[in-house]
Amino acid sequence: MNNGQQPNKIKVGVLGATGAVGQRFVQMLQGHPWFEISALCASERSVGKRYVDACKWNLRGDMPARLRDVILEEAVPGMDCQIFFSALPSDAAREKEQELAAGGHIVCSNASAHRYDEDIPLLIPEVNPEHLGLIEIQQRQRGWKGYITTNPNCSTTHLVSALHPLHVAFGIRKIFVVTMQAVSGAGYPGVSSMDILDNIVPYIGKEEEKMEKREPQKLLGRFDGNKVQMADFVVSAHCNRVPVRNGHLEAVSIEFDRKPTLAEIREVWMNYKPLAQQLGLPSAPQPALIYQEEQDRPQPRLDRLAGSVPGMATVIGRLREDPLFHAKFLVLGHNTIRGAAGGSLLNAELLVAQGYLGAKAATLANLAQLA
Amino acid sequence: MNNGQQPNKIKVGVLGATGAVGQRFVQMLQGHPWFEISALCASERSVGKRYVDACKWNLRGDMPARLRDVILEEAVPGMDCQIFFSALPSDAAREKEQELAAGGHIVCSNASAHRYDEDIPLLIPEVNPEHLGLIEIQQRQRGWKGYITTNPNCSTTHLVSALHPLHVAFGIRKIFVVTMQAVSGAGYPGVSSMDILDNIVPYIGKEEEKMEKREPQKLLGRFDGNKVQMADFVVSAHCNRVPVRNGHLEAVSIEFDRKPTLAEIREVWMNYKPLAQQLGLPSAPQPALIYQEEQDRPQPRLDRLAGSVPGMATVIGRLREDPLFHAKFLVLGHNTIRGAAGGSLLNAELLVAQGYLGAKAATLANLAQLA
Amino acid sequence: MNNGQQPNKIKVGVLGATGAVGQRFVQMLQGHPWFEISALCASERSVGKRYVDACKWNLRGDMPARLRDVILEEAVPGMDCQIFFSALPSDAAREKEQELAAGGHIVCSNASAHRYDEDIPLLIPEVNPEHLGLIEIQQRQRGWKGYITTNPNCSTTHLVSALHPLHVAFGIRKIFVVTMQAVSGAGYPGVSSMDILDNIVPYIGKEEEKMEKREPQKLLGRFDGNKVQMADFVVSAHCNRVPVRNGHLEAVSIEFDRKPTLAEIREVWMNYKPLAQQLGLPSAPQPALIYQEEQDRPQPRLDRLAGSVPGMATVIGRLREDPLFHAKFLVLGHNTIRGAAGGSLLNAELLVAQGYLGAKAATLANLAQLA
Amino acid sequence: MNNGQQPNKIKVGVLGATGAVGQRFVQMLQGHPWFEISALCASERSVGKRYVDACKWNLRGDMPARLRDVILEEAVPGMDCQIFFSALPSDAAREKEQELAAGGHIVCSNASAHRYDEDIPLLIPEVNPEHLGLIEIQQRQRGWKGYITTNPNCSTTHLVSALHPLHVAFGIRKIFVVTMQAVSGAGYPGVSSMDILDNIVPYIGKEEEKMEKREPQKLLGRFDGNKVQMADFVVSAHCNRVPVRNGHLEAVSIEFDRKPTLAEIREVWMNYKPLAQQLGLPSAPQPALIYQEEQDRPQPRLDRLAGSVPGMATVIGRLREDPLFHAKFLVLGHNTIRGAAGGSLLNAELLVAQGYLGAKAATLANLAQLA
Repeated sequence: MNNGQQPNKIKVGVLGATGAVGQRFVQMLQGHPWFEISALCASERSVGKRYVDACKWNLRGDMPARLRDVILEEAVPGMDCQIFFSALPSDAAREKEQELAAGGHIVCSNASAHRYDEDIPLLIPEVNPEHLGLIEIQQRQRGWKGYITTNPNCSTTHLVSALHPLHVAFGIRKIFVVTMQAVSGAGYPGVSSMDILDNIVPYIGKEEEKMEKREPQKLLGRFDGNKVQMADFVVSAHCNRVPVRNGHLEAVSIEFDRKPTLAEIREVWMNYKPLAQQLGLPSAPQPALIYQEEQDRPQPRLDRLAGSVPGMATVIGRLREDPLFHAKFLVLGHNTIRGAAGGSLLNAELLVAQGYLGAKAATLANLAQLA
Repeated sequence: MNNGQQPNKIKVGVLGATGAVGQRFVQMLQGHPWFEISALCASERSVGKRYVDACKWNLRGDMPARLRDVILEEAVPGMDCQIFFSALPSDAAREKEQELAAGGHIVCSNASAHRYDEDIPLLIPEVNPEHLGLIEIQQRQRGWKGYITTNPNCSTTHLVSALHPLHVAFGIRKIFVVTMQAVSGAGYPGVSSMDILDNIVPYIGKEEEKMEKREPQKLLGRFDGNKVQMADFVVSAHCNRVPVRNGHLEAVSIEFDRKPTLAEIREVWMNYKPLAQQLGLPSAPQPALIYQEEQDRPQPRLDRLAGSVPGMATVIGRLREDPLFHAKFLVLGHNTIRGAAGGSLLNAELLVAQGYLGAKAATLANLAQLA
Repeated sequence: MNNGQQPNKIKVGVLGATGAVGQRFVQMLQGHPWFEISALCASERSVGKRYVDACKWNLRGDMPARLRDVILEEAVPGMDCQIFFSALPSDAAREKEQELAAGGHIVCSNASAHRYDEDIPLLIPEVNPEHLGLIEIQQRQRGWKGYITTNPNCSTTHLVSALHPLHVAFGIRKIFVVTMQAVSGAGYPGVSSMDILDNIVPYIGKEEEKMEKREPQKLLGRFDGNKVQMADFVVSAHCNRVPVRNGHLEAVSIEFDRKPTLAEIREVWMNYKPLAQQLGLPSAPQPALIYQEEQDRPQPRLDRLAGSVPGMATVIGRLREDPLFHAKFLVLGHNTIRGAAGGSLLNAELLVAQGYLGAKAATLANLAQLA
Repeated sequence: MNNGQQPNKIKVGVLGATGAVGQRFVQMLQGHPWFEISALCASERSVGKRYVDACKWNLRGDMPARLRDVILEEAVPGMDCQIFFSALPSDAAREKEQELAAGGHIVCSNASAHRYDEDIPLLIPEVNPEHLGLIEIQQRQRGWKGYITTNPNCSTTHLVSALHPLHVAFGIRKIFVVTMQAVSGAGYPGVSSMDILDNIVPYIGKEEEKMEKREPQKLLGRFDGNKVQMADFVVSAHCNRVPVRNGHLEAVSIEFDRKPTLAEIREVWMNYKPLAQQLGLPSAPQPALIYQEEQDRPQPRLDRLAGSVPGMATVIGRLREDPLFHAKFLVLGHNTIRGAAGGSLLNAELLVAQGYLGAKAATLANLAQLA
């Protein structure tokens, strides 16, 4: 790939660069202070084509001019990319990500393939940075030089982001959640317009299972030095697809170990400043959580890009008493930014800042200079 | 008003005939076997105008030709209408409906004004026909010759319709519901397109209060001969407005006095044949409840008109175990047909069939001949 | 295929029965007075499966119960179907339709594959029934026992339906048309929701070419006993995809050989009663053309099902002077009913009524008895 | 009004600050290098209220924090605002704008009230800056110390922006245009969701008249030192409302005095750099016109914010031969930014840059320093 590259940036590749999440990776990596794209990778069908020819760009604004003529490559170990961002479909991801990690690359994956593996971190930098301890275990057990980290499903990400400080403060016992999820969550072409205009589809394959059984418990689990002890709350989820382009909205009711007042809950949210924000990671929104005061907010169209880094914050609103639980409220977040590409990207930033890039990695001090 | 009227039909008037629900009343009364419109009533602003001039018809199909030139009237006691169907806004409804009932008319109201009065039935014919016993008490207490009946809010109607046989069979203890409500529920012009295109508004004024505190408990309460003993389950509701034209979808989780199997729940729904269906009321769907087998149904666009009387049935689907409650499932129903005008209309049919139209009323036997 | 069939109905098959247009054929053939489905055909992938398993039904109402268990077949000459309705994609259609016609079947095709063949009728029963004369020529030239007829593209159908009587009365010289076409015109899954929510796509592959060069000129051309002499007006078309589920709306401006008054144009439309309506074909709407008086009509949602046979009429409105042409107005029609399956079906009814079903065919007199 | 104001900026007021266009003025004036809001004005109903209480903010992002507590005022001559931006409805605008201009204020109005007055400029800075000559005539004739300038209707703005260089180069004879206009063009609440979900409304009051008779001819007319000689081309317009939030898309066909090649047309667009761009006005997009190469662009969602100043450029695409005219193409532009508030704002910037702010005005040189 040709240049204009800054030699002191970290070279990264994008797996599945032509798809909806791949495009978000490409978009978010433009002008990134630490990272620079050195390879765009795609499936066999597109390898050898120019990016502009193989990719139907459907984000606002044009495809970055510098990348239009880049030739799509097959990702193989040994490429000049320290980090690979993976937007692969889950079945393609399993083998390819392992192959690259075995070959010494760091894979920051948005795919679900490895999320539930015991030795692979499922990571939200604000929530469970201590789970990075799994990396050493992963490398030892698998004999890999590189490693894999993953970020959760789009619906889980924003739910758990809102719940994390409450769990720390009051202990969560029960989570009830009904999602209203945007069509972009299904990728492109994804949901047919025939199915969703003037309609709701109250079913998203495997989504309720992910939210009920797998992800929140691991994310809010405790790393004991060897593995993650799953959190033991119970989750019930109803998942729905709605005619909204971007932004998942979730109606949430919670029961705690001890019932806090509404004021206490709000205070916890207001004072939330976790590690990612303390470190000032480039893609970490300041603050991480935004509480909307209006009685009819958050709304997807108005709030999905709220905050200092558009699409990276979690927006909360309508906190109120719940007749059956201790509190109810709404959570909104952008599903293809923080809920997908932006989640992986922030994970990579955390890896850099915490020194997980090995000898080749720039130190945080150096990186700060770049920024 | 001029004619083409059949002398043996019951003459009815429509209050608020120009609005969204008023239009539904007019549409559903066309060709009704028992009822015939003899007056279209409107607010001062429209009185004296032709219906076609004062009403922006926005239902599919044209305004009934016979009614285009009808002159809008002010509703006053003594008009030649045995029944008034009320599509008035709540504040206008309170006084006007009382005035007409005092004057000897029967008011079948979709307004919320009188729904929570102790001596006024809040009625779903399938659910609580025995609450008609309140009519005698109402007339005695208030000294009225006529009376008022009401039907519940659109969201409550379909929720309670689905729950009624379960409550009888297993006893309901907790109801958790998140609604996704169509824009027509807000009337016309109602929700601005600016607020709802590519968006969800997670707030509907007073809707959660109605569902949590007021309507389900009265509907499923027990009439003890003097008043209704409220049912004592607890309800938690989150209400949302979505970009769907018609049809409210509700995600529901339930806890019972004793936990039934999913098979038992389905069996109860399948065998449900309440009074309205036994009587064969003209607007009563057969069956009252439809269970959709597909894993991604019910959906508003596909199912809102399902069943033998379009828009009058309640459609259920996706019954499954709930990690926090005993069962979860979806409920869908048409909000301006059964959830509004059709609810009042079916109430009126029940009144006729049960002999509540007094001396002047045709007997059911006669009516059957009409049908 | 099993039965409940009436022996005196004409047996028909549906090619491409699982797709969007195929489903419309199936829906419209339910309870048809003359035709009865005896075969549902599909591509290799689905042959051998039950219809209910291979077809994601997405029309309002359920799949006809009688057809759920029908096994999908490969269409081959000799099957017990006098007529095949073809909802095949264009490339699959070319060979298969020829094979069936050669084998003695009548193919009423909605595909574009044969529309522009000189000896194959492109037919709207109201517009050019005399083009049926091509059938004899087709059979002679190709040595076929059966034959193919086609119906035009969805946008052309309604445009030409509105223009036909004006062309007869005043002679059309120039047609300017801008379409706003519903997503169902692209089939299922067709248009991605990602492309069309809060958006318009001002491009539909090959659509402008069809409207400008090929279809209107043939439809309004004169059959001289040997071939169709193309009409010689000029057409300019801009085609757009809009976020509407069903119903194509077209803004049309026309220049005539001699300029009529607006009153004359309306009179021509009002008095239009072509052959299909005179014959009283079962799927022919009465009247064929509906003129909407309101200043903001026709509208897709309100008018796409207008008329005596839902979805079969063409709806016109807003006739007014045009500063550059002689007149301008709007045309609306249902694209998957009259614009696709219904177009083929009405063609088949015309064939029956005009005696084009050969020795085996019931005479019109007999058919009338069926109806 | 309180401060944080920079004393060397030009003080401006916003008329109709609570409405949809008023909010855009407020949003676009945040951080403006030359202007600073010193008054928010509203109708009697809102005067005296805080902005946050009277205004339902419905733009992405929050209401500017600095303005939340500003008290809404009645606009009267003598207020400390050199320029008033008017987002008043047309009938309210007529008198109020005259009153303020008479009192020495400059009114940059988006209202239609004065657009067609002979001595009031209807202005697009790129198109007809020489029409500023009318200001002197206006002041002389009316005896005003201030003056009024207006910007055209949203649909006209983008159409004429695309046509201007073509008119200069080739002379336009005929314009045919069909618009597909976003709902925000009707203000807030504007178009009911009941009217536009899954629908198109092919009628917008007075819109076709404005485009056919009044605005393009004045904008592209020649100022002869005394008045504007109207351009003499003929326009035919069909105007439609579509379910898109922002961005008007227009299908355009043109006939010229002499027919250019498509390449010549593109070259003219590519080389277009009118006065506003030469001056580098802060809100002038660079370039003014964007030509999209993709065959299915421009699209409202993807392109409405294209260019260097989001929402200020006009986007063109799909240039091709027209069988009836000389060329056809698409024009897209943001209707509430350049088509409304941004149009007035750019007009004000032109006034400043051209020295039309009188003795009190900062000179361009000073302003450049500010920027």
